[in-house]
Amino acid sequence: MNPKIIKVRTKPPYQILIQNGLLQNLSQDLAQHLSFGKVAIITDSTVEKLYGKTVLENLQRQNISAQLFSFPAGEASKHIFTVQDLARSLVQANFDRKDLILALGGGVVGDVAGFLASIYLRGIPFVQVPTTLLAQVDSSVGGKTGVDLPEGKNLLGTFYQPVRVYIDPEVLKTLPSVELKNGLAEVIKYACTLKPRLFSYLARNSAKILACEERALQWIISESCQAKAWVVSRDEKESGLRRVLNFGHTIGHALEALANYQKPHGFCVAVGMVVSARLSENLNLAQAGLSQKIVALLQTFGLPTKISELDLNPEPEAIFTLIQRDKKVWKGKLTMVLLKDLGQYVFYENPPFSALKLALTQTL
Amino acid sequence: MNPKIIKVRTKPPYQILIQNGLLQNLSQDLAQHLSFGKVAIITDSTVEKLYGKTVLENLQRQNISAQLFSFPAGEASKHIFTVQDLARSLVQANFDRKDLILALGGGVVGDVAGFLASIYLRGIPFVQVPTTLLAQVDSSVGGKTGVDLPEGKNLLGTFYQPVRVYIDPEVLKTLPSVELKNGLAEVIKYACTLKPRLFSYLARNSAKILACEERALQWIISESCQAKAWVVSRDEKESGLRRVLNFGHTIGHALEALANYQKPHGFCVAVGMVVSARLSENLNLAQAGLSQKIVALLQTFGLPTKISELDLNPEPEAIFTLIQRDKKVWKGKLTMVLLKDLGQYVFYENPPFSALKLALTQTL
Repeated sequence: MNPKIIKVRTKPPYQILIQNGLLQNLSQDLAQHLSFGKVAIITDSTVEKLYGKTVLENLQRQNISAQLFSFPAGEASKHIFTVQDLARSLVQANFDRKDLILALGGGVVGDVAGFLASIYLRGIPFVQVPTTLLAQVDSSVGGKTGVDLPEGKNLLGTFYQPVRVYIDPEVLKTLPSVELKNGLAEVIKYACTLKPRLFSYLARNSAKILACEERALQWIISESCQAKAWVVSRDEKESGLRRVLNFGHTIGHALEALANYQKPHGFCVAVGMVVSARLSENLNLAQAGLSQKIVALLQTFGLPTKISELDLNPEPEAIFTLIQRDKKVWKGKLTMVLLKDLGQYVFYENPPFSALKLALTQTL
Repeated sequence: MNPKIIKVRTKPPYQILIQNGLLQNLSQDLAQHLSFGKVAIITDSTVEKLYGKTVLENLQRQNISAQLFSFPAGEASKHIFTVQDLARSLVQANFDRKDLILALGGGVVGDVAGFLASIYLRGIPFVQVPTTLLAQVDSSVGGKTGVDLPEGKNLLGTFYQPVRVYIDPEVLKTLPSVELKNGLAEVIKYACTLKPRLFSYLARNSAKILACEERALQWIISESCQAKAWVVSRDEKESGLRRVLNFGHTIGHALEALANYQKPHGFCVAVGMVVSARLSENLNLAQAGLSQKIVALLQTFGLPTKISELDLNPEPEAIFTLIQRDKKVWKGKLTMVLLKDLGQYVFYENPPFSALKLALTQTL
């Protein structure tokens, strides 16, 4: 079976390939479609154990000179020191501008390796091989790279597009269930904002998806990547449309911060989507019942739908203060993504606190 | 008098303004041509003392909210830690994507501040206000940013264009004489490769230039920036034509490394240009006498023309080994920029060692 191919029309454009078993099989496509010297596989300690050897040997069988560089798994590695350490190793191993970086792993690996690729010798090409659902449907597409500062997440980074993305749904079989759910929250985000047919599919096929049935996974990943590719193709550097990807994230980020980043991103986004849907109803943008549909779908996948499920009990004022931070990114305006209906998003500037407070109270 | 304006046709394009006294006077142009919130002036300890207050007060008089961030002067500050420290200070002072970075200083400040601007919140706008001749005619134009690694110079960085460049030749009056010469070597590089009329002007007006006569400085800076802008407009990311800027630099970089970076860049480039001109003659590309013209001009400005003047006495083989490093940047090929005549450059791949050895021996 041929891989599903999705085109991302950035400058320069690139393709996302989705196919079961692609991880054992990507070297042929790589050699056929890209021109490069050596390959630096950048991965973390967890993914190295699972798939490092597979990818390395697959490349070497194709007579591609490849070397593996690994760093400790976890958000703590999303640091400029990791980038510097990797850069030094690459210089010492004589990697230059004609060589290629291959990011093998989840979001942290993709963000760090992408950032490294964008600043190493002022930029060398890189491919993404995401191994978590979250990375497959979100961070591996769109070119956002970055590391954290003590003051906050992703404060240093670049917009830098990969030259190709390889997605193998089969690898999700080794993914912990909480990580699968983490990614499913983002899939549901696309379903709510851009893909009503994905919403119905998810509702009908939850059992298959939770059992990692390959065809079902491939379909929802493909739909999600299409949605993200459509957005990124129209707004590469976050100047307008790309804000739609922030549905559930304004509140979600505030909840994540309140939980000291000890709760999964997707879980916080799930609750954020519920609050946003309720806010949409409270502002009479959406008909009553929309939020309930979203709550039902999230519950089907075992995702939280109440703030208390995140072990939080914040004052609405505290959340209101935290969401002001999002202004930084959007040139001083607090814009929330709300819904008129499934697939019909609205950018809503500075929503009144009273309506937001009600939505938060309804979601405690 | 209106400023001299030079357009750089990168994506997006920007303008270089050259005018005496511009440093006391840039806030009006800034407010008129750019839209931004606050200004972060990034500078080093030396330039802060000389011009920090001038620029800060000039901005504040125009009711622009501005803050000064300084780091210790010197190449040792060209480190990823400096970038991280500055980024943390900017976050703490609430700088966001609508704000502006102003790089006030020489090459190190421009490289560090430009790199910071390119990765802070994934990129915010920045302007260059270069205060050394070298920065005015070279590093402030063209969008190369970066920091060093223990393994080598400029190994981490980006291509990131400023939104505007302000050049005030008057500031060169406070510049140490060795720093003026350092910049003049790059001016002579443009004269040799792209601007024969600049070559004659330099030969006729050396006394005025060395005395920092303002009109003469303004003219040679303007000619140099035009040459660089012409090159960069045609090759933003170093894929071809931009190699012309490397005239004298392949050998120059090797000499710098041999001198443990204790000799000024421009001095090493000056000797590198002599070697390259002699190599051009040895390969029968140029007529005999070209190298002598270049030697004479360099000597007029007190620049070295022999390897021994850099207190070095290397074996030609050592230099040949070191210049192989340049391959890294140029996709595996060692390309030297040679001359048929003044203003007529040639890209010459893998010159024979015998001819290079002769040129080196002639320049000991």
